[in-house]
Amino acid sequence: MKMADLKPEHFRWRMDGRVAIIQLDRPERKNPLTFDSYAELRNTFRDLAYAEDVDAVVFAANGGNFSSGGDVHEIIGPLVGMDMKELLAFTRMTGDLIKAMLNCGRPVIAAVDGICVGAGAIIAMASDMRLATPEAKTAFLFTRVGLAGCDMGACAMLPRIIGQGRAAEMLYTGRSMTAEEGERWGFFNRLCSAEELESEAVVLAQRLCKGPTFAHGMTKTQLNQEWSMSLEQAIESEAQAQAICMQTRDFERAYNAFVNKQKPEFGGD
Amino acid sequence: MKMADLKPEHFRWRMDGRVAIIQLDRPERKNPLTFDSYAELRNTFRDLAYAEDVDAVVFAANGGNFSSGGDVHEIIGPLVGMDMKELLAFTRMTGDLIKAMLNCGRPVIAAVDGICVGAGAIIAMASDMRLATPEAKTAFLFTRVGLAGCDMGACAMLPRIIGQGRAAEMLYTGRSMTAEEGERWGFFNRLCSAEELESEAVVLAQRLCKGPTFAHGMTKTQLNQEWSMSLEQAIESEAQAQAICMQTRDFERAYNAFVNKQKPEFGGD
Amino acid sequence: MKMADLKPEHFRWRMDGRVAIIQLDRPERKNPLTFDSYAELRNTFRDLAYAEDVDAVVFAANGGNFSSGGDVHEIIGPLVGMDMKELLAFTRMTGDLIKAMLNCGRPVIAAVDGICVGAGAIIAMASDMRLATPEAKTAFLFTRVGLAGCDMGACAMLPRIIGQGRAAEMLYTGRSMTAEEGERWGFFNRLCSAEELESEAVVLAQRLCKGPTFAHGMTKTQLNQEWSMSLEQAIESEAQAQAICMQTRDFERAYNAFVNKQKPEFGGD
Repeated sequence: MKMADLKPEHFRWRMDGRVAIIQLDRPERKNPLTFDSYAELRNTFRDLAYAEDVDAVVFAANGGNFSSGGDVHEIIGPLVGMDMKELLAFTRMTGDLIKAMLNCGRPVIAAVDGICVGAGAIIAMASDMRLATPEAKTAFLFTRVGLAGCDMGACAMLPRIIGQGRAAEMLYTGRSMTAEEGERWGFFNRLCSAEELESEAVVLAQRLCKGPTFAHGMTKTQLNQEWSMSLEQAIESEAQAQAICMQTRDFERAYNAFVNKQKPEFGGD
Repeated sequence: MKMADLKPEHFRWRMDGRVAIIQLDRPERKNPLTFDSYAELRNTFRDLAYAEDVDAVVFAANGGNFSSGGDVHEIIGPLVGMDMKELLAFTRMTGDLIKAMLNCGRPVIAAVDGICVGAGAIIAMASDMRLATPEAKTAFLFTRVGLAGCDMGACAMLPRIIGQGRAAEMLYTGRSMTAEEGERWGFFNRLCSAEELESEAVVLAQRLCKGPTFAHGMTKTQLNQEWSMSLEQAIESEAQAQAICMQTRDFERAYNAFVNKQKPEFGGD
Repeated sequence: MKMADLKPEHFRWRMDGRVAIIQLDRPERKNPLTFDSYAELRNTFRDLAYAEDVDAVVFAANGGNFSSGGDVHEIIGPLVGMDMKELLAFTRMTGDLIKAMLNCGRPVIAAVDGICVGAGAIIAMASDMRLATPEAKTAFLFTRVGLAGCDMGACAMLPRIIGQGRAAEMLYTGRSMTAEEGERWGFFNRLCSAEELESEAVVLAQRLCKGPTFAHGMTKTQLNQEWSMSLEQAIESEAQAQAICMQTRDFERAYNAFVNKQKPEFGGD
């Protein structure tokens, strides 16, 4: 399956080499999500698992903001009138976007600027790595709209990134996490200026594309599924996963390059 | 069940609006725990799960100290003479206090000043959020009385708050964690002066009381039980939990307030 | 079983009181691991579970470096030619070293200087505590040899020490973690000068040897196995583990010393 020429209706998509760059596309409203963009994003991340021409994804800001989350008029309004069957269909659909991100088989890098709240904060959280500008304001503000902090996996994932005590504060109060706090707490891997944010994220993604991409997919799988294993099970699971990687040509390429004092050229197989 | 007029025998209890404030009450001995205060605290937190008039709990310091933990004369002495059946009854009773705190359905905020050691450190750890003064000295000092660091869930909870390496040092050595370390490591959410500590904790608790308290209870449940789920299970579990919250009136209130450009008044239903 | 007089072929072993000090012993090549040293280390850590004369282990640097990991010529070369059965035998053998470290029943302290990469970084990670010099360079560089970050439990253990976001960066990119980052992120418990590194690690180990060593073993067991329990299960598991420790003489010794205003002399029973 090739995805370079994808023409999504509800978000922007472009390629830079084998890096796919996604941007929500309503910058005048700080890039809210709608039912349509949720569903199209979910389908796109599901397809990415089979993409032959994409090795990494950058989820970028647009117009100085990452995302304002679920649109109040287009999402919250309709939800208020729904019955339980419809509500559960919605919360499962949004959860399916996060599952699709976790299972897409490629590293996803979020490049966060400005407003990054609600479902936007969740998308950043479900990415593998996160860069941000000093102006990034990240809030899990579900509590402010009368809901619980447990949205799309936040009570599982956020504590694993920043620790249980800090996650509890973010999820109970809905307060903004500053960029500086985010870096200090391990939510953001690094801060960059607004001018450099997207290019820095793409450079990092390109670097991953030049690496052993099959092995990166295995790293992603294991990083996500070893939380519910015992350490003994995790070690056995990694023995199997790494033995598989040792049969790739990339492993042989690295060895040959080393012996010949060259830089390895990986092929992802 | 109404709890505002509770008259506990072994600790202080008072209400500030819908915030219950608990203080151990032997400040001249830095507020040790006894068999009686353990049992009464356990029963109180169990009752809190059904309280109609309490939405948040502050566990506060008293006389400049939080708690010196299990009393040497009143607890450790008798334990030394017990047989295994009696010992297990004791360790299960103390563990039941922590289970009751985790299951009480409301956020618990610890306000830590001065000495916070042994069972006192455990109570702070089992709270949802923690404020402290710069003078707070927190030690999991079980090792100093010949015991293991695994007391009332410490080997499970402390690593999830401050990371496995730091938790190992605290639990193996029993050394004091300074307030500054605690803030840096994510054990304390924030430091405040001794004068402001309790009022800051109550202000935070009041803020939570003005929020969607039914949803807060769901946040607490999910924060605690998603550690033993896979990420996929956690996402499904949150889809269900959040769909439930979307049927509360608080969700509708928030939407209506937003549409009318007002601040929502939540009702906890 | 007594281990003080162990004469290993493939690494250095010496005792300082009841502390065993291990050093890889090819400083001219920055202490790589070989098939032989892997196997002998695994067997030694397995034996340590039964050792009567060792209460703590220091895994120390040698000649200014900790370890350069699996030797390119002696390990990676042969692996490239192996079939799946042989590869899995290798990855399970290396995983067995980590399982043996987790199950050896005594705290292991890594003293990291200079290069600490690949399997060397894994050995540091699988230790209970870590000291380092400001010159320590730690890299999980599996990706640079065409492999995945999931090696010997890294995708399980590293996120629990430094958080999921930082662990993802280290494992996807293989970049060096500086000593300062390591301290800030909770990988290193403390930094010391190169002159003091080993002696500081031994002092810490000696301090643990003077503590209740039976209880330390219980702390280690629980710290490692409670990650795959629910909090409720962990609390019950600790009620049992601590009740066992309350029947040791060390608990009684501590109480008697306290009553007599003395420092307790623990015996490890």
